Amino acid sequence: MGGSYKMFHELDDWMKEACGVFGIYLKDGDNTSTEAARITFYGLYALQHRGQESAGIAVSNGQEIILHKAMGLVSEVFSPDVIAKLAGHIAIGHVRYSTTGESHLSNAQPLVFRYLKGMVALGHNGNLVNTTELRTRLATLGSVFQTTTDTEVIANLIARYSQNPLKDALVKAMIDIKGAYSVVLATEDRLVGFRDPMGIRPLCLGELEGNYVLASESCALDTVGAKFIRDIEPGEIVIIDSNGLSSHKALYSTRRAHCIFEYIYFARPDSTIDGTNVNRARRAMGRQLARENRVEADIVISVPDSGTSAALGYSKESGIPFEEGLMKNRYIGRTFIQPTQKMRDTGVRLKLNPVVETVRGKRVILVDDSIVRGTTSKKIVSMLKGAGAKEVHVAVASPPTICPCYYGIDTSRREELIAAKMNVEAIREFIGADSLHYISVEGMFEAIENSRESMCAACFNGEYPIPVDD
Amino acid sequence: MGGSYKMFHELDDWMKEACGVFGIYLKDGDNTSTEAARITFYGLYALQHRGQESAGIAVSNGQEIILHKAMGLVSEVFSPDVIAKLAGHIAIGHVRYSTTGESHLSNAQPLVFRYLKGMVALGHNGNLVNTTELRTRLATLGSVFQTTTDTEVIANLIARYSQNPLKDALVKAMIDIKGAYSVVLATEDRLVGFRDPMGIRPLCLGELEGNYVLASESCALDTVGAKFIRDIEPGEIVIIDSNGLSSHKALYSTRRAHCIFEYIYFARPDSTIDGTNVNRARRAMGRQLARENRVEADIVISVPDSGTSAALGYSKESGIPFEEGLMKNRYIGRTFIQPTQKMRDTGVRLKLNPVVETVRGKRVILVDDSIVRGTTSKKIVSMLKGAGAKEVHVAVASPPTICPCYYGIDTSRREELIAAKMNVEAIREFIGADSLHYISVEGMFEAIENSRESMCAACFNGEYPIPVDD
Amino acid sequence: MGGSYKMFHELDDWMKEACGVFGIYLKDGDNTSTEAARITFYGLYALQHRGQESAGIAVSNGQEIILHKAMGLVSEVFSPDVIAKLAGHIAIGHVRYSTTGESHLSNAQPLVFRYLKGMVALGHNGNLVNTTELRTRLATLGSVFQTTTDTEVIANLIARYSQNPLKDALVKAMIDIKGAYSVVLATEDRLVGFRDPMGIRPLCLGELEGNYVLASESCALDTVGAKFIRDIEPGEIVIIDSNGLSSHKALYSTRRAHCIFEYIYFARPDSTIDGTNVNRARRAMGRQLARENRVEADIVISVPDSGTSAALGYSKESGIPFEEGLMKNRYIGRTFIQPTQKMRDTGVRLKLNPVVETVRGKRVILVDDSIVRGTTSKKIVSMLKGAGAKEVHVAVASPPTICPCYYGIDTSRREELIAAKMNVEAIREFIGADSLHYISVEGMFEAIENSRESMCAACFNGEYPIPVDD
Amino acid sequence: MGGSYKMFHELDDWMKEACGVFGIYLKDGDNTSTEAARITFYGLYALQHRGQESAGIAVSNGQEIILHKAMGLVSEVFSPDVIAKLAGHIAIGHVRYSTTGESHLSNAQPLVFRYLKGMVALGHNGNLVNTTELRTRLATLGSVFQTTTDTEVIANLIARYSQNPLKDALVKAMIDIKGAYSVVLATEDRLVGFRDPMGIRPLCLGELEGNYVLASESCALDTVGAKFIRDIEPGEIVIIDSNGLSSHKALYSTRRAHCIFEYIYFARPDSTIDGTNVNRARRAMGRQLARENRVEADIVISVPDSGTSAALGYSKESGIPFEEGLMKNRYIGRTFIQPTQKMRDTGVRLKLNPVVETVRGKRVILVDDSIVRGTTSKKIVSMLKGAGAKEVHVAVASPPTICPCYYGIDTSRREELIAAKMNVEAIREFIGADSLHYISVEGMFEAIENSRESMCAACFNGEYPIPVDD
Repeated sequence: MGGSYKMFHELDDWMKEACGVFGIYLKDGDNTSTEAARITFYGLYALQHRGQESAGIAVSNGQEIILHKAMGLVSEVFSPDVIAKLAGHIAIGHVRYSTTGESHLSNAQPLVFRYLKGMVALGHNGNLVNTTELRTRLATLGSVFQTTTDTEVIANLIARYSQNPLKDALVKAMIDIKGAYSVVLATEDRLVGFRDPMGIRPLCLGELEGNYVLASESCALDTVGAKFIRDIEPGEIVIIDSNGLSSHKALYSTRRAHCIFEYIYFARPDSTIDGTNVNRARRAMGRQLARENRVEADIVISVPDSGTSAALGYSKESGIPFEEGLMKNRYIGRTFIQPTQKMRDTGVRLKLNPVVETVRGKRVILVDDSIVRGTTSKKIVSMLKGAGAKEVHVAVASPPTICPCYYGIDTSRREELIAAKMNVEAIREFIGADSLHYISVEGMFEAIENSRESMCAACFNGEYPIPVDD
Repeated sequence: MGGSYKMFHELDDWMKEACGVFGIYLKDGDNTSTEAARITFYGLYALQHRGQESAGIAVSNGQEIILHKAMGLVSEVFSPDVIAKLAGHIAIGHVRYSTTGESHLSNAQPLVFRYLKGMVALGHNGNLVNTTELRTRLATLGSVFQTTTDTEVIANLIARYSQNPLKDALVKAMIDIKGAYSVVLATEDRLVGFRDPMGIRPLCLGELEGNYVLASESCALDTVGAKFIRDIEPGEIVIIDSNGLSSHKALYSTRRAHCIFEYIYFARPDSTIDGTNVNRARRAMGRQLARENRVEADIVISVPDSGTSAALGYSKESGIPFEEGLMKNRYIGRTFIQPTQKMRDTGVRLKLNPVVETVRGKRVILVDDSIVRGTTSKKIVSMLKGAGAKEVHVAVASPPTICPCYYGIDTSRREELIAAKMNVEAIREFIGADSLHYISVEGMFEAIENSRESMCAACFNGEYPIPVDD
Repeated sequence: MGGSYKMFHELDDWMKEACGVFGIYLKDGDNTSTEAARITFYGLYALQHRGQESAGIAVSNGQEIILHKAMGLVSEVFSPDVIAKLAGHIAIGHVRYSTTGESHLSNAQPLVFRYLKGMVALGHNGNLVNTTELRTRLATLGSVFQTTTDTEVIANLIARYSQNPLKDALVKAMIDIKGAYSVVLATEDRLVGFRDPMGIRPLCLGELEGNYVLASESCALDTVGAKFIRDIEPGEIVIIDSNGLSSHKALYSTRRAHCIFEYIYFARPDSTIDGTNVNRARRAMGRQLARENRVEADIVISVPDSGTSAALGYSKESGIPFEEGLMKNRYIGRTFIQPTQKMRDTGVRLKLNPVVETVRGKRVILVDDSIVRGTTSKKIVSMLKGAGAKEVHVAVASPPTICPCYYGIDTSRREELIAAKMNVEAIREFIGADSLHYISVEGMFEAIENSRESMCAACFNGEYPIPVDD
Repeated sequence: MGGSYKMFHELDDWMKEACGVFGIYLKDGDNTSTEAARITFYGLYALQHRGQESAGIAVSNGQEIILHKAMGLVSEVFSPDVIAKLAGHIAIGHVRYSTTGESHLSNAQPLVFRYLKGMVALGHNGNLVNTTELRTRLATLGSVFQTTTDTEVIANLIARYSQNPLKDALVKAMIDIKGAYSVVLATEDRLVGFRDPMGIRPLCLGELEGNYVLASESCALDTVGAKFIRDIEPGEIVIIDSNGLSSHKALYSTRRAHCIFEYIYFARPDSTIDGTNVNRARRAMGRQLARENRVEADIVISVPDSGTSAALGYSKESGIPFEEGLMKNRYIGRTFIQPTQKMRDTGVRLKLNPVVETVRGKRVILVDDSIVRGTTSKKIVSMLKGAGAKEVHVAVASPPTICPCYYGIDTSRREELIAAKMNVEAIREFIGADSLHYISVEGMFEAIENSRESMCAACFNGEYPIPVDD
């Protein structure tokens, strides 16, 4: 049991992260039971794709909050012995993936704090854009920080306003913070969820045998057997306690800005977010892509698994048969064994291997969800040609990624985004494809079926709904 | 570092197991280099689907054999520190999955032995059918056993014949043992592979920059950048040393008996085994299944991932569109957290979740690779109906599994095989499907394209190529 | 890597603890070198007796502070890999033993904080008596707390005063806090040590090849090869930076109150604290004990190891020969294996075993350093009688422990202190000794050679130098 | 859970080791109870000083033998979860310290084997001298070896003779093996102990509430609450089963050869071995040493802990007062952190620190149990002088160690034994002492009180009771 921590001198350090949150309030909950913790465990299990680096659960037994968190997958972090200590009728959970090289136990969530009014546990998905300013302001007032998370900033703000009732303190804190946030919060006797005024990151509400559940994605509700009720509204606070649920519209914005990348890549296909099923959106994007770019070919294949939905849509629209042309090794874990030079040259084979019989002599359309830096696409194209593909046409189910995300998804720095530096033809040449096709921004919006005013597509069009300092 | 071992009083205990083996001989190998071990690491990585319980690598540096093995996935068992100790120009590796509850480090492979002629390391895939008899015979001669593996029996036989040259000792041992075996073996200066006279389990030979490689499946050759040369022949011994490769036809059988289950479920789709590509075979079985059983439906879906190839074949043949109707949680690890009662009832949701939008109101054909005990199928059908599927027709890309396997694949005991106890209609009723269709035994053989005389399909037709005592 | 944390609703929870601290500033320090961390590692090694539950080291490389801490012994917490990450020219370290059942990674030290002026790491030995008041005051101002340590309170106070230069902020914080504290603190470019105005817990200054070292006890200086310079004065702040050492007399008290229990039991015999060598003090107490209580006996034995110094003094004064009558198992680690009933009855045998030949038929004087609850003494007396001792006379080298400690040493709660409930004769009867002798309070002071005005002996005489609320 | 194994090409590799063994047979034992395992756990705990590298327990439940072993201390290897799996009425245990750099889980004991008659578990303390010959003989007959332990050789011999009843097979095996051995052995329904014909290594019998117990030393009997009955006779086999205990005098030798080093250093002082209490022997050696070598001095100090008994004897005989002049760090664990150059020069300080006040200005007699290579003595003398000792006279409670041990105690290779290369004066000069005194061989025998014919003192006089090949 231990932990290495590295902390930075700067009061802020752009820690863009991908995360998932979950919470449950068992209304007739027995505080000696671990049921809330176990349901949260399985909720996090279903959200594991949102963060594989650390996991944590905090439970409240009405008197105090008990926390366990560690680096690792949900199934590694929680053993029966650990769960046995997490008795209580309220639980929140968090999975986290830090996109920087720096990832520490001290930044794992939930964070638990004691303040004037008692204890509070918080789990946060998103990224604030005014953290530097808030930290400086708080530090001037005497705050100290033990982590580099936005979550600690939010907790300090709530503490600043702690002379007010919790709801009012939350509203005041929400007024101060700018950026993307979907937060689950537990006190000794309440479960709270709140979402930024544009609804950038997802958060939904479900019901499990009469109890309220909060989750980043609906697939977590399904997994624990809960029924989807509705998405938390942008700017809404829901407070669940022994009196049931109360909803407060804390902040109002005319602009909604649901992250379009959730649909393209990040969320699980069986989730429905803000009214749109992810799988349906991906298929629709595949179909739209086929409509926009007619290519003569023998087969459509995908980069598994995230490109498969779009590839099936593409196949259906174009009439070109879908085949499994690339096999994925399902057991890829973290490995630090140095490959040989030969393996390094064809690195992607460790993850993906072409089915030679399927692609040999064929004109292949390779559908991928997105191209970020282009290096992986280059290797896959080369591998397919090496396996005998006559032509490889790359079709991308999202537009060129030209701008970085500041709201909680790691899309790399601008200088690493290939589409920020090259035009389509140059990218095609770089990856060695016979042709390269992106869906258009217009086509993407059409496929998603949400009005473009309700989405954030800044990574594709540079229209940031919230101004970013720096 | 440790290990709990349990050993049994009986001299034999039917430890059916699934395994993968790999070996490499670097002809100009530097004995201070870990290249052979690192290539073997990646080879095992590619074979991880054949065994997830333990992994091991033994290297020979010309003087001695050094071994590391442990319980866990390949990426868990080998760290750079561990690999650093495995310098030598010959390496063999093994992954193992024990299908019994009893699985111990002492049974992990490779096993390393010292005998009259020096040291030998062995890794075995398969299952012998006369182990009891052999153990008794050897024990009467004074042998002791520290494991319950067939591998230890093979090693003791080689030691018995150690007055002979290695090749002759191997031939004599092969005469004694009955059953399925594909073995890789390393001495201080040789790499050896041998395969049972009917070729039940796969074993192939490749070439990597002038060096010979042995692997259970060709996908492991691809992963390390090796070129496929040929399958090891049934009954063949290949010995690789500083003089190159020599082949010896040790045993001859008129009957070949390649395991048909490798094509149906066990092997990776991108592997080609004994001349047949696995993906192609699965697609062909899906097509054949569709030809044999015409069903009216709106969509074809699969049980991912092993049912997908067949489902795509089914879709193509039938013209009914393929959709992703079930999403799989890719992060399922070992978990021992007790689910709630509700989760237990719908247990499969932790692994699979229906895409409601895709299946709601639809007549669904669900393609699976096989049905063993029927309980999982029952849960999936129920889950699909719960998601709103109007009809669920189950199409199985293998015939009813009516007999247990004694040659190294766990198909459960006979009394657990639902098709050994019920007819198709009873199974259909049990799993709650609207209709249930199996491919015919004839159709399966036709799809695989190998003559039925060259395959073992005992689990489907009870025709065991090697008599089993007991 | 992980950690279970339990946090309490109350803002304070009397976490009395025993701890050791160490710090070093390498003046020509290479910030890419781990020398400071390695010296600190060995310093903590020498202080391990002051806390066996968690260990931590924080280093400053001039830009930032890097921390590693974990539950376990120093040798378990730090591996070469971990040390390799701790490069920097300033290091502080901490070992901790929590005397409550609740001990968590989150309470392990050093704690590292970022505040307005940058980063700061703190390690604390002692216990504050006005934590509740300070926490409430800070919480009212908006502070949040992530641990239950006094250290976090001190850090928050420093942050409150952060508009001032560090030295002034420290003085202001020292004015606020009441109780026992010896603190080592590191910023990006300074090493600081400060001690409460009565000097309750020890802290000394040494010199290692021109560099300053701080340590709880002089034995840690010896271990790393440093020379003892002097004790840090009560109420003194020393600040070490690139300009050398500056000393500031922050607080002044007419009363010194060095903890007498350090000499009796807690410190290592080879340490010299505030001018008195621990071994010499213990021997003197043994001699004084013999002078005060003449007992006819054949041999003097000790409860190893802490009773041996006093027993040797007792033997010398009384002329009764010292023998090793009890052997200690040196390998006692944490074990949670349930002993049998028989072992439970004689539990102490797992730790101590009588040398039968030595004690059989003898009149034995058993010298122990102190009696807290009496249950262990009872078992030892019974064990010696069982081994054939004719008489067992217990001589205790400290007076009856009648009051709990509030300044950082766990002497159990008042209701558990046997001497708080019974007179000497009743204790004698309880433990089954033939006679029982304590050193007198006067005799103890005389033996220690320090004036009674300079010591805290509250646990023996109830004269608490600092009033305790509650 | 894992293990790295290295195996050697040579059939033998002089693996001198120090070990401890324990065994218990619960006659009314409940095979679902873990009582036998728990008693064995505590027995090994008491024998931990005999081996700190690996620990193991094998239990028999009447049907089969279950084993757990791992690298580490007893308290690290066994958790409640592990013990819970070790139900059965017979248990044997083993602790091991390999004196070579090569120490592997595969060599940890007990070893468990299946042979013609069932299962057998063995734990061995000692060292055979004809292992090479036995291994070659067995290998010629077809045996294979998976470890480099003598124990595996013994097991193979028993298996060779397995057509005979167990007792006869044991006798035949004992006829074959030459060297030192005290073995505990368990079958499904018997507990067996046997000892080499000269009784080189210790083994004793005890009784715990009507049940028989075997242990390397009597301190283990004390710890578990058992009563000492007698030592196992040289050449004796005791077999304990449901009919009670039967004794068989298997081999007879006119020569006894109890290892004298057990008394000098290896055994625990509270143990009584072959009639002589270890503490008494050590004190007697200290007295004898003082009688043989009169030295003018102020104080007697010891190298703790093993030199303390002799130092007390020396002090008593000489009238020079005993003082604690060196303090030992009780928490020395395995550490691999690189000390600084300064620490390396005075390396011993990490373990031992002088009490300056005690030794300053004094003429010191330093009593140690033995000098092997002389380097540690040199450092201690230098450290004492550095602490101000006026003179340092070294008195060694054993004669010069001139020959290596081949019977199971690591006394280093001959070329490392300083007394094999230098005379006393040269050693004195090397270690920097003012005078150096060894006890005489005659004096040692007198002190031990056993006739010299009953002891092995080969390391001091080169008279090896059993010829050693090579």
